[in-house]
Amino acid sequence: MKLRLAMIGGGVGAFIGAVHRLAANLDGQYELVAGAFSSDAEKSAATGVLLGLDPARVYGSYQQLIEGEKQLPEAERVQVISIVTPNYLHFAPAKMALENGFHVILDKPLTFSLAEAKQLQEIVKASGCLLCLTHTYTGYPMVKEARQLLATNELGPIRKAYVEYPQGWLSKFEEGGNNKQAAWRTDPARSGVAGAMGDIGTHAFNLLEYVTGLQVTKLCADINTVVAGRQLDDDGAVLLKLSNGASAVLMASQIAAGEENNVKIRVYGEQGGVQWQQADANTLLVSRLDQPTEIRRTGTGYVGSFARHNTRVPAGHPEGYLEAFANLYRNFALTLQARAAGTLPPPEALDYPGIEDGVRGMAFIENVIASGKSSEKWTEFRV
Amino acid sequence: MKLRLAMIGGGVGAFIGAVHRLAANLDGQYELVAGAFSSDAEKSAATGVLLGLDPARVYGSYQQLIEGEKQLPEAERVQVISIVTPNYLHFAPAKMALENGFHVILDKPLTFSLAEAKQLQEIVKASGCLLCLTHTYTGYPMVKEARQLLATNELGPIRKAYVEYPQGWLSKFEEGGNNKQAAWRTDPARSGVAGAMGDIGTHAFNLLEYVTGLQVTKLCADINTVVAGRQLDDDGAVLLKLSNGASAVLMASQIAAGEENNVKIRVYGEQGGVQWQQADANTLLVSRLDQPTEIRRTGTGYVGSFARHNTRVPAGHPEGYLEAFANLYRNFALTLQARAAGTLPPPEALDYPGIEDGVRGMAFIENVIASGKSSEKWTEFRV
Amino acid sequence: MKLRLAMIGGGVGAFIGAVHRLAANLDGQYELVAGAFSSDAEKSAATGVLLGLDPARVYGSYQQLIEGEKQLPEAERVQVISIVTPNYLHFAPAKMALENGFHVILDKPLTFSLAEAKQLQEIVKASGCLLCLTHTYTGYPMVKEARQLLATNELGPIRKAYVEYPQGWLSKFEEGGNNKQAAWRTDPARSGVAGAMGDIGTHAFNLLEYVTGLQVTKLCADINTVVAGRQLDDDGAVLLKLSNGASAVLMASQIAAGEENNVKIRVYGEQGGVQWQQADANTLLVSRLDQPTEIRRTGTGYVGSFARHNTRVPAGHPEGYLEAFANLYRNFALTLQARAAGTLPPPEALDYPGIEDGVRGMAFIENVIASGKSSEKWTEFRV
Amino acid sequence: MKLRLAMIGGGVGAFIGAVHRLAANLDGQYELVAGAFSSDAEKSAATGVLLGLDPARVYGSYQQLIEGEKQLPEAERVQVISIVTPNYLHFAPAKMALENGFHVILDKPLTFSLAEAKQLQEIVKASGCLLCLTHTYTGYPMVKEARQLLATNELGPIRKAYVEYPQGWLSKFEEGGNNKQAAWRTDPARSGVAGAMGDIGTHAFNLLEYVTGLQVTKLCADINTVVAGRQLDDDGAVLLKLSNGASAVLMASQIAAGEENNVKIRVYGEQGGVQWQQADANTLLVSRLDQPTEIRRTGTGYVGSFARHNTRVPAGHPEGYLEAFANLYRNFALTLQARAAGTLPPPEALDYPGIEDGVRGMAFIENVIASGKSSEKWTEFRV
Repeated sequence: MKLRLAMIGGGVGAFIGAVHRLAANLDGQYELVAGAFSSDAEKSAATGVLLGLDPARVYGSYQQLIEGEKQLPEAERVQVISIVTPNYLHFAPAKMALENGFHVILDKPLTFSLAEAKQLQEIVKASGCLLCLTHTYTGYPMVKEARQLLATNELGPIRKAYVEYPQGWLSKFEEGGNNKQAAWRTDPARSGVAGAMGDIGTHAFNLLEYVTGLQVTKLCADINTVVAGRQLDDDGAVLLKLSNGASAVLMASQIAAGEENNVKIRVYGEQGGVQWQQADANTLLVSRLDQPTEIRRTGTGYVGSFARHNTRVPAGHPEGYLEAFANLYRNFALTLQARAAGTLPPPEALDYPGIEDGVRGMAFIENVIASGKSSEKWTEFRV
Repeated sequence: MKLRLAMIGGGVGAFIGAVHRLAANLDGQYELVAGAFSSDAEKSAATGVLLGLDPARVYGSYQQLIEGEKQLPEAERVQVISIVTPNYLHFAPAKMALENGFHVILDKPLTFSLAEAKQLQEIVKASGCLLCLTHTYTGYPMVKEARQLLATNELGPIRKAYVEYPQGWLSKFEEGGNNKQAAWRTDPARSGVAGAMGDIGTHAFNLLEYVTGLQVTKLCADINTVVAGRQLDDDGAVLLKLSNGASAVLMASQIAAGEENNVKIRVYGEQGGVQWQQADANTLLVSRLDQPTEIRRTGTGYVGSFARHNTRVPAGHPEGYLEAFANLYRNFALTLQARAAGTLPPPEALDYPGIEDGVRGMAFIENVIASGKSSEKWTEFRV
Repeated sequence: MKLRLAMIGGGVGAFIGAVHRLAANLDGQYELVAGAFSSDAEKSAATGVLLGLDPARVYGSYQQLIEGEKQLPEAERVQVISIVTPNYLHFAPAKMALENGFHVILDKPLTFSLAEAKQLQEIVKASGCLLCLTHTYTGYPMVKEARQLLATNELGPIRKAYVEYPQGWLSKFEEGGNNKQAAWRTDPARSGVAGAMGDIGTHAFNLLEYVTGLQVTKLCADINTVVAGRQLDDDGAVLLKLSNGASAVLMASQIAAGEENNVKIRVYGEQGGVQWQQADANTLLVSRLDQPTEIRRTGTGYVGSFARHNTRVPAGHPEGYLEAFANLYRNFALTLQARAAGTLPPPEALDYPGIEDGVRGMAFIENVIASGKSSEKWTEFRV
Repeated sequence: MKLRLAMIGGGVGAFIGAVHRLAANLDGQYELVAGAFSSDAEKSAATGVLLGLDPARVYGSYQQLIEGEKQLPEAERVQVISIVTPNYLHFAPAKMALENGFHVILDKPLTFSLAEAKQLQEIVKASGCLLCLTHTYTGYPMVKEARQLLATNELGPIRKAYVEYPQGWLSKFEEGGNNKQAAWRTDPARSGVAGAMGDIGTHAFNLLEYVTGLQVTKLCADINTVVAGRQLDDDGAVLLKLSNGASAVLMASQIAAGEENNVKIRVYGEQGGVQWQQADANTLLVSRLDQPTEIRRTGTGYVGSFARHNTRVPAGHPEGYLEAFANLYRNFALTLQARAAGTLPPPEALDYPGIEDGVRGMAFIENVIASGKSSEKWTEFRV
């Protein structure tokens, strides 16, 4: 009944691989049965042992994994492959997986470059398979509540948005030492043209477009590399125009010393606004002109269908990052199961980030870095 | 490698059964393979189907489950049984499970009465099996940080504690309608002598003794049944004396209209204090005389070994109620695995609530209800 | 036009005298023109110099002040006398002032003992003068909003209240050194029978009765002297019954190490609750069953007439402790001015704490200390 | 002993005039003795009556006021003139006051245009008088604490700053009705070239330069007029470069529907950061890499000399907007008194915004509006 899952990347010590596994576990809708956890076959095997996998299904490369699984009878073979490698290793395994009939869950950003992203979009289309991109923050119930509320137009047309993602963990030259996370995320050969903007700027961008239901049309970026010796940007701020003419500001930094990971979004319509931040993830503040601000909370009876669908426990029992991540996995599973059953999943389940989000995210990366280098003020957002 | 788990109770629609399953899933250390989800065999079977279990291992009663599993070869048979039934159905299945060599995870409070609790304590001892009692709140990393910090005496001897658990969900006569949760929790035949004090007062009591490392020695309770027609208490406040002479106040209410579930504890020593609340679960406030209050956060490098051991993701990625619950399951699993391997688990893993907590919790229930009825001011806390 | 004000007590270095002067200044409705700032005539004179007063009106004792001012022509003579001495020096000057036709503003608690308080009540009545008692916390606009909202019964009959006043400043034996505040507040000869309960417990008590509009009828107190060598209580918690049958808990401590002064009150009715705390003084949280909690804020258009009357600046400009204190002075001035003009002040101006609050406060002190010493559980609240 | 104060503008119904009076009152260092509260002599007189002023010193124009006061003997004549008129009426009365030997307190922004501002700077210099500009936010003790801490370099060189000032009160076309505040603030003839940027953007700009101790050198602005029919900007965001090479973002909006007035600043150095917001004005958060964030609070013993000097009451007694405003008045008074006494005031008293802040503020207005209209990306900040 559970979806059989394989993982590419995510060997011992990797951050995001472990998160994907926790997210896949939570709702009991996946069973991790295979993996190519590292390009080093020994490391991959060792991870398999720790995870209690059948050694026969722990592979030394993604190619072997895909080939190997394809040989297995359909009832045994994995159905979904999670790819949790650094950015430069997204495209090839995703392509191969899709072309061989496997559904794909991919860590963000989608690919190494926008060109790859567009190519992958064609591949998805041609494959008939589905792809889920793990933009975690849109998995939070109160982020979905914000989107659903704004979509009703109850707060009027959107006029202004602020989205920010401050971190401090790259305040020093971390990539000089043993910090593997820092090493690849600041390395243009593995990350792509962007550092902070690719790593967390894309999250902020995705959150902005998701919550507002609007698209970025123009931008003007200030992109900085603050830490001496660093090869990619570690800080930036962007002025934005949205498809309805509203303006927005996006801020992302990895040198905001002392900050953890407090993604925050504020959106204002004609009649009121919404505010959400990860540090208080179970709360959505809804303000209205000349009225008391409302504290909307997960697990209550009054929230909308999207928040409700993406919450597991009653009001007052906080759910967090892993639950938000698991919502992506769960909604993807529900969609795949509905598809397998020949039915249509409810809109609440279909609501996971996919290939289009991925392409726009890669476009953001390339546009924002180009704008940062440009002496032109406003540049068109081009996909 | 995973521990084979069975569940007693937790049929579709039950609240806490689902929470136990999510908690068991999260870290991939358990596999739910059997269950007696309801005393109604059909309902039990239906739940088994939804959970994708082998129908052969979905039983119509806990007796059948224990008997049935005992027949299976050791390598197949479940190792741990989670009991998530209403209080009056804790003792019998726990006893039978333990006496048949199964480890037990039991939802709190331990039993229906203190007498049962003491009897169960003997049974655990005799059985050689282990028992984990799911007092969730002690599974939170920052609750553990508070305990670890206070244990160092860095803040000096404890002088005062406040613990509170306000809820509002029983503000109306919910038990009159279809609310199954309300129905059994307010029914003396199923809950025992206490309502709010048994349901949430025990959590507050456990949290108090856990964080302070002290024991309650005397108490003076104001116990109220506020809602007309209700059979058990729905509100109370208790003055307490602790084993080092300090005083404390415990408040628990289910008629605090509009409150969710914001368990909170504050403890003050000679030199400073700690404060934690579930609504901001990833934060521990540490105050000191004439110094700025510290905001300690999960996932950081500076927290103690207990908080670190019980956190999965880096700072800034909030973990919540399910993760706290899963910490109990995980620590119990680590302990069982170490035991199976003939080794000693680290103290951080051994740190889950057990039979002694359960006995004291039941003593709290009986003492607090007796004090509420008594015209004597201070009464001894008797186990 | 300004009311001519004299002050008894409040020499240089005193805490509350300076606060009274700031409060009297703020709205420009008083002019401090005379004082007996200390029983040491030189100190009194020096304070007068610092305050720029006419030396002729700076007296060496309260008797001299009252005598002296009485000699002056009515148009020059002070109209209001603020008494800001330690508790044991409240009654005599207040009595003399009232009997000589001066209105009195008195720092809390009213007197040294309940007997004095009741006597003063008779004196006020006989004098035809007015008395304002500075229970600051009821001067906060959002405290008034809470009272006004509860009075409408919109949240249903009150069922439960928690009021707390944690401080940490007496965590050590401060009275051993140069801390004058600590010295008199812990000295039974100057403070009366209570320490913390008199100093801050009375504030909590007054806040409770003010916000709920109910009276305490029974109580059961745990009163502690935690710091070795201290002569009066420095910590306590009280179970209470209110006049409508609701229960309440009052906590006050001066050994909650690391706490500042965060008075907080929560009151729950059948349909919802209110929550206010001094640390976020411009906010009142209003919760309702199954609805989002409201954040009500000072300075907005939607608050009630009492909050509006007691706010000076628009929403978003925080007002604090001094403004709350000044509200007492201002409302007292408005009442005196209306009286002088032969009109009736609006109910919002009349709403300042007076002699009845003072008598009940003194009754609280004596009742709570007696209950603390009693082995009886519930004792009647006797005035 | 009190400084004799006159006010120009601030007739009944004006917002900021009343605030100036409250601020002047609080510490008892000024006595308002004269005024030209309106250019309508009757209105001016009526305001004088309400304020209890001698009618002889209530004038029908600022010219009359200055002339009239100049006739009075020096010991009677006002010493300081507060000018609280709309922007277009700042320069002329300030000039005349200074040239006639009166010290000036001026509401921000300094003048109607940068040209006027520079001229006024010369006039101040020539006059030998002092000028205080009421940029309120720099009067908050914890803003001063932030500046003082950053100046020590304990957090390392500044790398990034965010300053924001979101308001919602101009979300509708308020200037169409009876809202006098809205009317003049959106009118280019009375406000100058900027709306939101002049009204609140200048506050944010001043706060940024004050806290960081750095100057803006380049900027790139997105300036919007969101509400149809409005003549001036009501929203904007600005990318900035600071004199040490750090980057910053400034956001100011008056159409952030539902927001009150929550000015906020965050500054990050190499080793940590500071965060302050008006809604929690008595707190400064100080974060450091790999350490718990500190909650620094007003009124404590550990804060720096600037915070201490600008606080009136002990920790836990919140001070707010009026106290911050009063700090400007108080520090200006202390400076004038020291000067009169031929001594030097302490640096903490000298620390009020003056003519240089005013000139830079006007430069900000002109630069930011120009940048908003420019298709050039980065423009130099020119004074």
